[in-house]
Amino acid sequence: MKSSRFKVTPWEVEGEVDYGKLIRDFGVSKLDEKILKRIEKHAKELHLMLRRGIFFAHRDLDWLLDEYEKGNKFFLYTGCGPSGPIHLGHLGTWLFTKWLQDKFDVELWFQFTDDEKFLFKDKSYEEIQKWTYENMLDVAALGFKKGKTHFLVDTKHANLLYPIAVRIAKKITFSTLKASFGMTNEDNIGKIFYTSMQAAPAVVPSVLAKRNIPCLIPLAIDQDPHFRVARDVYPKLGYYKPSVIHSVFMPAMSGPKGKMSSSEVNSAILTTDSAKEVENKIKKYAFSGGRDTIEEHRKLGGNPDVDVSFQYLRFLFEEDDKKLERIEKDYRSGKMLTSELKKITIERINAFLKEHQKKREKARKEVEKFLWKG
Amino acid sequence: MKSSRFKVTPWEVEGEVDYGKLIRDFGVSKLDEKILKRIEKHAKELHLMLRRGIFFAHRDLDWLLDEYEKGNKFFLYTGCGPSGPIHLGHLGTWLFTKWLQDKFDVELWFQFTDDEKFLFKDKSYEEIQKWTYENMLDVAALGFKKGKTHFLVDTKHANLLYPIAVRIAKKITFSTLKASFGMTNEDNIGKIFYTSMQAAPAVVPSVLAKRNIPCLIPLAIDQDPHFRVARDVYPKLGYYKPSVIHSVFMPAMSGPKGKMSSSEVNSAILTTDSAKEVENKIKKYAFSGGRDTIEEHRKLGGNPDVDVSFQYLRFLFEEDDKKLERIEKDYRSGKMLTSELKKITIERINAFLKEHQKKREKARKEVEKFLWKG
Repeated sequence: MKSSRFKVTPWEVEGEVDYGKLIRDFGVSKLDEKILKRIEKHAKELHLMLRRGIFFAHRDLDWLLDEYEKGNKFFLYTGCGPSGPIHLGHLGTWLFTKWLQDKFDVELWFQFTDDEKFLFKDKSYEEIQKWTYENMLDVAALGFKKGKTHFLVDTKHANLLYPIAVRIAKKITFSTLKASFGMTNEDNIGKIFYTSMQAAPAVVPSVLAKRNIPCLIPLAIDQDPHFRVARDVYPKLGYYKPSVIHSVFMPAMSGPKGKMSSSEVNSAILTTDSAKEVENKIKKYAFSGGRDTIEEHRKLGGNPDVDVSFQYLRFLFEEDDKKLERIEKDYRSGKMLTSELKKITIERINAFLKEHQKKREKARKEVEKFLWKG
Repeated sequence: MKSSRFKVTPWEVEGEVDYGKLIRDFGVSKLDEKILKRIEKHAKELHLMLRRGIFFAHRDLDWLLDEYEKGNKFFLYTGCGPSGPIHLGHLGTWLFTKWLQDKFDVELWFQFTDDEKFLFKDKSYEEIQKWTYENMLDVAALGFKKGKTHFLVDTKHANLLYPIAVRIAKKITFSTLKASFGMTNEDNIGKIFYTSMQAAPAVVPSVLAKRNIPCLIPLAIDQDPHFRVARDVYPKLGYYKPSVIHSVFMPAMSGPKGKMSSSEVNSAILTTDSAKEVENKIKKYAFSGGRDTIEEHRKLGGNPDVDVSFQYLRFLFEEDDKKLERIEKDYRSGKMLTSELKKITIERINAFLKEHQKKREKARKEVEKFLWKG
């Protein structure tokens, strides 16, 4: 998916992203008032990421809700590419997924794509395995429902996934991948096959249950190409097309120019960072929407739209819309300084991480229980 | 691998094959007197397929024997693509492999490439699974050593094979496959990945034992491209290059124009054929090197080189070189008629199949024991 202004593939996000253009280019639907109302009807509330347009687009969510209303429950499927430590940017999709699981009381299948990261990154198999375990701790720490949450690790659950993946792969040509992912002849043959492994979990519960079960995939928009290609395949194998709900990217520390990435130094706050590290990172690296001097800031006001500290509150850490609005207003007017805004954000992140890190340690004993046993 | 005269890829064999040219094109070595002597030293005899040049080429067999003589035992790896019934053409490689296992007292890893056949053939997943089971019965019936013989089915042993395959796949580009297999952009992405699944078993014992174990792969020459590509990869992963020993193709019923195939009607004698069916097939379809009339045959003699009945005796059913020579001489001189030659071949095939079919039925209870349990 290339344009003159930006590029969004599952492995590259560059430039400032125009989400309106993305909706048109990718052929997804906007999450409009009508569908938000339908979600609210069942959930009794709307998650902050829905209220604030962070989840902004979808495929076939109307159909999924129709089925749900007929008593045909869906399951959730999302995942993690384990190539490094987990940062705050990862958490958005997963916290939203947890909300969906709680509100709709559904199963979750969570895929760790260790094969993908090994095949796409210049890292050893052993290093990827280490990150797979470390990342599982973070996911387990988020409190997904036990007994209703199943971790799949591609190389460890290949007996389950590979036979499904070959059925999907048989229906996808290399030409299609070239067009959708910009792959070339110089790409390795594992990369080329990989998309069918990512497509497989969307039908795993249907394969196991021997009946067709609707699937909802929450993901950041860069992962959409995998399912755009695979969605055409599922019906040919006798399965429903999965529904998808898409989020924007959480801005990187360096500002709203692309996706937050754990591979760029200092571009991310890690879930394992100490309170001091968080404070330093935010103070030193968090892109600010403030003015050069306090005087100027008081006079002209700051810009919360590009301010990374503010965006962290908006994406993750300020649940209360009224409070968020107040902060936004004060910052825009110049009443709140960047240092004051950063202080709030640091406190919120550290409060969250303190709890998360405790749960993450406890998760060492629980991870095994989440792994699917076939 | 294309030339003006013939084409040999793992999925297509066309035209009359020039094995001398194949040795040059594929860059394999001829099985010469010197190396045959080395084999004979250990085996105390030479298998008829070695004596008669049916196994005719190799890669790195000298090195493998060096290691063996140092006390570093190899293991055998061969396989079966389960897309239809087993015919006599399949048996050559396997019977030779059994001989190697018996003489060198080594482990055998036997791969059933159900993924390959599903991805390359216009057949359903279920049909391929059916043939996988049926083919396993034939292989088990050949009497490989229990406890030293391990069946791998790609989709059932993906937990073992896929993690190795991705390590191999990372080192192979699509460009390489295009050059070696003639693949195109319109090929499905499962086909493209597949060669790394076929390459995996050559290091499975080393991976499991966590030490480097030499591997010998007996195969028909059309399978060589898989290993020609993969052999460059193994050392990059810290493993030995496997040695390979190559056979010519068993001629099809219709004559020496290519490989015997179970997908061509009447081109093959199946292991499940009745004595009557064998008789009919040989009488009706086995390409004859005889003359048009008995008078002519008596006068000018027949041509055993192209006679399929004679070739069956040479490949599989006449162990005694002196007897074979006598038949050849009598047929070539015109003393033996085609009907007489066919009678001998029919008797030999039916004697073999009678025993094989008994063992094949018994194998229903034994197949499970051969499947690798990880």
